[in-house]
Amino acid sequence: MTPPLPGQTSLVQGTFPELNPPYRLLLGPGPCNVDPRVLRAASAPQLGHLDPFLLDMLGTIADQLRQVFQTQNELTLCVSGSGFAGAEAVLCNLLEEGDTLIAGSLGFFSGKIAEIAQRIGAHVILVESEPGQPLDPQQVAAAFARHPEAKLFATAIAETSTGLLQPLEELEQITHAHEALFVVDAVSGLGGIPINIEQMKIDACYAGSQKCLGALPGLAPVTLNAHAVEVIKRRRRPVQSYYLDLLALQRYWNGDHAYHHTACSNLLFAMHEALRIVLEEGLETRWQRHRLHGQALRAGLQTLGLTLLPRPGYELPVLTAVNLPPSVSENQLRQQLLTAYGIEVGGGLGSLKGHLLRIGLMGYNACRKNVETVLAALEQLLPSYGWPVQAGAALSAAATVYSQEDQASGHA
Amino acid sequence: MTPPLPGQTSLVQGTFPELNPPYRLLLGPGPCNVDPRVLRAASAPQLGHLDPFLLDMLGTIADQLRQVFQTQNELTLCVSGSGFAGAEAVLCNLLEEGDTLIAGSLGFFSGKIAEIAQRIGAHVILVESEPGQPLDPQQVAAAFARHPEAKLFATAIAETSTGLLQPLEELEQITHAHEALFVVDAVSGLGGIPINIEQMKIDACYAGSQKCLGALPGLAPVTLNAHAVEVIKRRRRPVQSYYLDLLALQRYWNGDHAYHHTACSNLLFAMHEALRIVLEEGLETRWQRHRLHGQALRAGLQTLGLTLLPRPGYELPVLTAVNLPPSVSENQLRQQLLTAYGIEVGGGLGSLKGHLLRIGLMGYNACRKNVETVLAALEQLLPSYGWPVQAGAALSAAATVYSQEDQASGHA
Repeated sequence: MTPPLPGQTSLVQGTFPELNPPYRLLLGPGPCNVDPRVLRAASAPQLGHLDPFLLDMLGTIADQLRQVFQTQNELTLCVSGSGFAGAEAVLCNLLEEGDTLIAGSLGFFSGKIAEIAQRIGAHVILVESEPGQPLDPQQVAAAFARHPEAKLFATAIAETSTGLLQPLEELEQITHAHEALFVVDAVSGLGGIPINIEQMKIDACYAGSQKCLGALPGLAPVTLNAHAVEVIKRRRRPVQSYYLDLLALQRYWNGDHAYHHTACSNLLFAMHEALRIVLEEGLETRWQRHRLHGQALRAGLQTLGLTLLPRPGYELPVLTAVNLPPSVSENQLRQQLLTAYGIEVGGGLGSLKGHLLRIGLMGYNACRKNVETVLAALEQLLPSYGWPVQAGAALSAAATVYSQEDQASGHA
Repeated sequence: MTPPLPGQTSLVQGTFPELNPPYRLLLGPGPCNVDPRVLRAASAPQLGHLDPFLLDMLGTIADQLRQVFQTQNELTLCVSGSGFAGAEAVLCNLLEEGDTLIAGSLGFFSGKIAEIAQRIGAHVILVESEPGQPLDPQQVAAAFARHPEAKLFATAIAETSTGLLQPLEELEQITHAHEALFVVDAVSGLGGIPINIEQMKIDACYAGSQKCLGALPGLAPVTLNAHAVEVIKRRRRPVQSYYLDLLALQRYWNGDHAYHHTACSNLLFAMHEALRIVLEEGLETRWQRHRLHGQALRAGLQTLGLTLLPRPGYELPVLTAVNLPPSVSENQLRQQLLTAYGIEVGGGLGSLKGHLLRIGLMGYNACRKNVETVLAALEQLLPSYGWPVQAGAALSAAATVYSQEDQASGHA
């Protein structure tokens, strides 16, 4: 016997038309368009989260991720959530209420480290840089001197709100000199810029699926070394989150596969295929590709008379943050790119809102065609804002970068 | 300038063959196979998480969910995670450290409410039922009498570890008589059994995407009424989780769409299409369909001489928990179903491990073909375990249920 059905009158029902999403060229801070192979892989019929085939696949993905992260770390897996879920997983497993961390904020995204840690109940010591500037290692050293009890230092290698590439070497040395954990946000970097967990002595790292790895959103790769795992094992209180408990996830992924949650087979299919593509291309070739197209884009943008936000020498290859002249409406320009060209780019966040374009060339999208497409669109659109451009100059500047590269690699 | 590439020698790289996942008939506790329309919708090229088309779609999905939940609740959205992420979102937003909740545990899944709340730092008063038995309202009333400070009572309407349908009416009355919040886990029920948030006076409810709604895993629908939202707004401390902060998610979904996290467009496409299918069928028709096929399955299983775990009258239509005779190895039988038939069914959890089959008929999978397929497979397999069956009897018992239904509805 089942409960009686409620009366028809209580049911309010409408019909909804089918969805026909437009095609967008995703040149913002991620997601990027994925290789068609990835969507094809993702559309396979589902598997249960405890199917032996799926459990084997978890082991394969963990192995693929170890190669991409360049680590032997046993605890290497995906959290079922976005990059922020990965950040929260790492932070809420490593930190307990009352613990001190030093958070290196470079802008909106690495700034979230402080917010996440504060909610956990940790004592946050914030070290900030100006927009587009890297962290000052002296300030981090000073924070450690004032707070020798700090349990960890965390920052991002790739801050996409300002297009900044943060050098890590000095920060790592300072952190480990104080016997704290070195935690790195690689959400936008992994698969696009050199990241080598063991060489860089990173204790815990989290990444994003939908950026330079070229998978779908919804899975956050994380890796922790034995020292970080030991810190979790020595906690006084259980991790505050069931969903993000890394040792339980580790058991599901790389242990006896004890049920923890329903992982989505189709996102895992996509991740597996994306990582195959990364490893088929090869990490160095892939980093070099992202570097080349980022360089060509910057050359073109500067030829349009635009300036870049990050300090010279610290430009992130995979995302370029370009300042807009006062006469150009960020909102209107992005709107035009979206509606007239079907191109998505990012805008400024927080205090940078209204003054910035953030153009991403990530994963499958890091190619010459896209560099030329976005430069050509800007060349057509900018004059209507009273910003004169020399016809063809931007594409020509990009072409010069490509031909220099060809010569350097002996293909010319 | 980008950092120098590390030496080739540091890179360990392997190749990975393409994945060819087997086709499984998913007759476990979820995920279920989805309507082919859902996989097709999910394979559309991605959209950014702030794309105007995607933001419109969020509004549409929220409207669809309001119809499926039968509520006008403004705070109706999907958390980007599994059903447990939905559970944790509801509990960690409503509860603060030191708050008391009464947790009604019917088995493995509703039992997780207690674990999640304990990790949050809440004071958990556990009321448990024996496997397959509903909660005793007297015990819940007694718990409230001992703990009048209890802030909320939470249990599940559909406990899939035991195949139990939990009546809610008395529990709701007791809870509200004590001015506590009435929180319901509908992970496995929504879209398959009658759930009407407003009629049932549920203050907060969370569901799963991959069960009777027939979408892909990775999104957890939640709905909270104004009273529950008010409880969140009056918190003394911020919600411990950034990722699961419901008011921030509400702002992204139904407010000014301020960025919160990268929602996965493809899982949302799948959810939109799945909810279209639910509403095209109509809620009552869909509940009736799940009820009918559950009844036919139970009739067939009982004709095979098997007994059901739940107390008669409390059987969950969408998942049938059937006891195995001592001579039948659960593990081996499930293995045979999987390898020889490509059928996934669930097994026993915890103390029930080794003694139970859990057969789900959810969403697209709730149909006569699947009832007959699994009954026929069991009829073939059981005799090899020394459990004699009468050839054709199970299918015949199921057919009787179908013909009675046809007669009752005038189609015979």
